[in-house]
Amino acid sequence: MNRMRLFTPGPTSVPEEVLLEMARPVFHHRTQEYRTLFAEVSKLLQMVFQTANPVVTLSGSGTAGYEAAMINTIPQGGRVLALSNGKFAERWVTVAQRNNCEITVLKAEYGHAIPPEQVAEALGKGKFDAVTLCHSETSACTVNDLQAIAGHVRKTDAILIADGITSVGAIPVKPDDWGVDILVTGSQKALMLPPGLAFVSVSEKAKKKMETVKQPNLYLSLPHYLKSLEANDVPWTPAVTLVRGLHVALKMIAAEGLENVWKRTASFAAATRGAAKALGLKVFSSNPSDSVTGIHYPAGFDDKNFRGALRKQFNVHIAAGQGSMEGKIFRISHMGYVDAFDTLGVISAVEIVLRQQGYQFDFGAGVVAAHKELARAAAG
Amino acid sequence: MNRMRLFTPGPTSVPEEVLLEMARPVFHHRTQEYRTLFAEVSKLLQMVFQTANPVVTLSGSGTAGYEAAMINTIPQGGRVLALSNGKFAERWVTVAQRNNCEITVLKAEYGHAIPPEQVAEALGKGKFDAVTLCHSETSACTVNDLQAIAGHVRKTDAILIADGITSVGAIPVKPDDWGVDILVTGSQKALMLPPGLAFVSVSEKAKKKMETVKQPNLYLSLPHYLKSLEANDVPWTPAVTLVRGLHVALKMIAAEGLENVWKRTASFAAATRGAAKALGLKVFSSNPSDSVTGIHYPAGFDDKNFRGALRKQFNVHIAAGQGSMEGKIFRISHMGYVDAFDTLGVISAVEIVLRQQGYQFDFGAGVVAAHKELARAAAG
Repeated sequence: MNRMRLFTPGPTSVPEEVLLEMARPVFHHRTQEYRTLFAEVSKLLQMVFQTANPVVTLSGSGTAGYEAAMINTIPQGGRVLALSNGKFAERWVTVAQRNNCEITVLKAEYGHAIPPEQVAEALGKGKFDAVTLCHSETSACTVNDLQAIAGHVRKTDAILIADGITSVGAIPVKPDDWGVDILVTGSQKALMLPPGLAFVSVSEKAKKKMETVKQPNLYLSLPHYLKSLEANDVPWTPAVTLVRGLHVALKMIAAEGLENVWKRTASFAAATRGAAKALGLKVFSSNPSDSVTGIHYPAGFDDKNFRGALRKQFNVHIAAGQGSMEGKIFRISHMGYVDAFDTLGVISAVEIVLRQQGYQFDFGAGVVAAHKELARAAAG
Repeated sequence: MNRMRLFTPGPTSVPEEVLLEMARPVFHHRTQEYRTLFAEVSKLLQMVFQTANPVVTLSGSGTAGYEAAMINTIPQGGRVLALSNGKFAERWVTVAQRNNCEITVLKAEYGHAIPPEQVAEALGKGKFDAVTLCHSETSACTVNDLQAIAGHVRKTDAILIADGITSVGAIPVKPDDWGVDILVTGSQKALMLPPGLAFVSVSEKAKKKMETVKQPNLYLSLPHYLKSLEANDVPWTPAVTLVRGLHVALKMIAAEGLENVWKRTASFAAATRGAAKALGLKVFSSNPSDSVTGIHYPAGFDDKNFRGALRKQFNVHIAAGQGSMEGKIFRISHMGYVDAFDTLGVISAVEIVLRQQGYQFDFGAGVVAAHKELARAAAG
C-alpha cells in the first residue's frame, strides 16, 4: 500500500491532474482548438525557459531535441567545442562525430564542473561554429556554470547549445540574460510529464547560423518547426495528449511561480545533501546540481540489492549511477512533482535499507537533518 | 451532449481502457517491469504487422518512422524508385531529395493506384536501392496493390519500403508473404492510440542493406533500435505512457482477431461508399482504400462551412481533402475504435447538414443504404 515514489531523474512523477487531462478524448491537431492550446503552451514554455525566443515543441525524447539543435546549426564538418563531463555530453560528441565535425573536447572528470576559464582559453585558441554542453549533467549530478561559460561564448561567432534537460524548470537558467543560443529540455523531468516531448529554444544568432546549414533530416528540421510555430502550428502530427498534459503542467508551474519552484527544488537538494552528510555518506560531485543528488555507497554495498530493496519494500524508486559511476553511487531526483514530505520519506526509506544491509550509523540522523533543512526552507 | 465522434484518418478515437491505462502513475523504463511489457508489446506488434521480422518502436510521428526507414537503408545519393500518388508519397520524395538521392518518380494522379506493371517496367529499365510507396495513400483515399508491386520488387536487389500508416491493422497487409522489406505505421490510426509513436518492421534483406549505409542521424538510427530490441530495450527514453496504452490496444486487437478487424473496417467503408452512392455523391478514387473514404462535395459546397456545421451541431469530426483535393472532397475514417452505429451516425449527420446547406436528395437514402450494408456484414 506504499504510494509509488518515483525519484529517478527522469521520468519523474506526473501530477494526477496532468494524468487525467491526458485521459480525455483525443481531438485533431489541424484545428483552431489545437492552435489556441498550442499558442498558450508555447507562451508558457517561454516563461519556463525565461526567454523571448521561440520555443519549439517536438515529439520525441530529449535526444531528439538535442540532436535537432545540433544538426540544424552546425554544418557537416563544422568545428565544435564540446564540453564534456558526463554521459550526456558524450552523447552529443557522438552526434558531432556522426556529422563529421571537427571536434575539440574539453573534458572534466565525472563529478567536476567544466572550469569557465578553460572554455575562454579554448575559445581563444580556435574558431568554432558551436560550443555544446550539459548545463546540469544528470549522469554526474553536476551543474556547470552556464552563465560564466555563456559570457565567454557570446563574445565569439560560435553559438552556445546547452542541454537544459535537467535544468529548465528546476534550477535557475536565463538564456536571454546569459547568452545561451539554444536551450533544450525534455518533458519527463521538471515539466512533470511522461516522456515523449522535447523542447528547443532558438536565438536570433542561432537562426542566422541555421540559414547557412543544409542538413538532410526532415523530421528534426528546426526551420520547419519554427515556420509552423509562427502560425501556432506543427509540421508533423504532434503527440496531442502529451501537449494537453503539458498545458496543465505549465499552468501549475505558473501558479506556483517559477522562482518558487527553483527554491523548492534547491531546498530538497540541500536537505538530501544534509542527510547524506549526517549519515556519514559522501555526496558525489564537487559542484552538485540541485536537480539530482548523487550519494556514494558505503564500502561493499551492492547497487542492485540496495535499490531493489527500496523498490520491493517501500515502492521507492531511485536511480543507479551512469557511465563510469555505475555501481558506485545512487541518485535521487528533486525535479518536478515532489514535495518536502516525499523527500523526507525517501531519506527515511534509505536509512532503513542502509541499516538492513549492514551499514553502521546513527539511525535517524539523516531524517532529522533533512527535516531541519526542510523546515528552514519552509520558513523562508 | 453529443458524444465526440472523431472520424479523421488520424488521430482516431482512443478506447476508454487505453486512455485510463495512460493515466496510471508513470514508471521508469530502465527496469525489468518495462522490459517485460515491451517484450509483450513487440510480440503483439509482430502479430498486427503479420511479420516474423523485428518491429521497432520509436517515439515520434509517422514521419519519423518513415524517415528512419529510408535514411538507414538508402545510401546518400542512392537510387530510389518513388511511387507517388498523393501527399504522403510526395513527403518521402522530399526525404529522398534531402539525401541527394537519384530519384525516379513513377506518378499516378491523386485518386488512382500505381499500376504494378508500370513498376515492373521501371524496375526493368534501371537499378535501384529502394522502391518507396504508400500502401494506403490517406490523402487520396486510395489503396495501392502492394502485393503485386512487392512481387516485382522482390525479384530485384532493391528493397521495398512501404508506408503502412493507414493500412497496418486496418486492411490486409502480409509483408512476409508478399515481400515487403520495411513496413511503417503510426500509433494514431488503426492502433487506436494518441499520436506519438511510430513502428518500423525490418526484413533480413533490409538489414543487409543497412550494413552498407552510414547516415549521420542518431535519434532515428535503426541499428541502435534493433540492437536494443534484442534485449527488449530502447536506445533513448521511450514515451512510456503511450507504450503502456499500446499494450492495452494491441490486446484488444488480438482479442477481436486481426482478420475480424480487417472485415469490420471493410464493412464500414462499404457502408459509407454505399451511402454516398445512394445520396448521388461521387466516391473519390478509382481504387478506394477501406481505411478512409473520400466523397466529392456537391457543386457549390464550402468545405469549411460543411465540416464546421458537423462539428458545431453534432460533435462529428471529419477531414478535409489534402494536397490537390483540398476543398473538393471530405474524408471519413474507418480505422480503429469505431463501430457500425457510429458509422451510421456519421452518415445521418452528413445527410442532415447536406440538406441544411441546400443539397437536393432523397433524405434518408444514405442512412438506409449504410444500414443495409452494415446488417449484411453483421450477418457474416
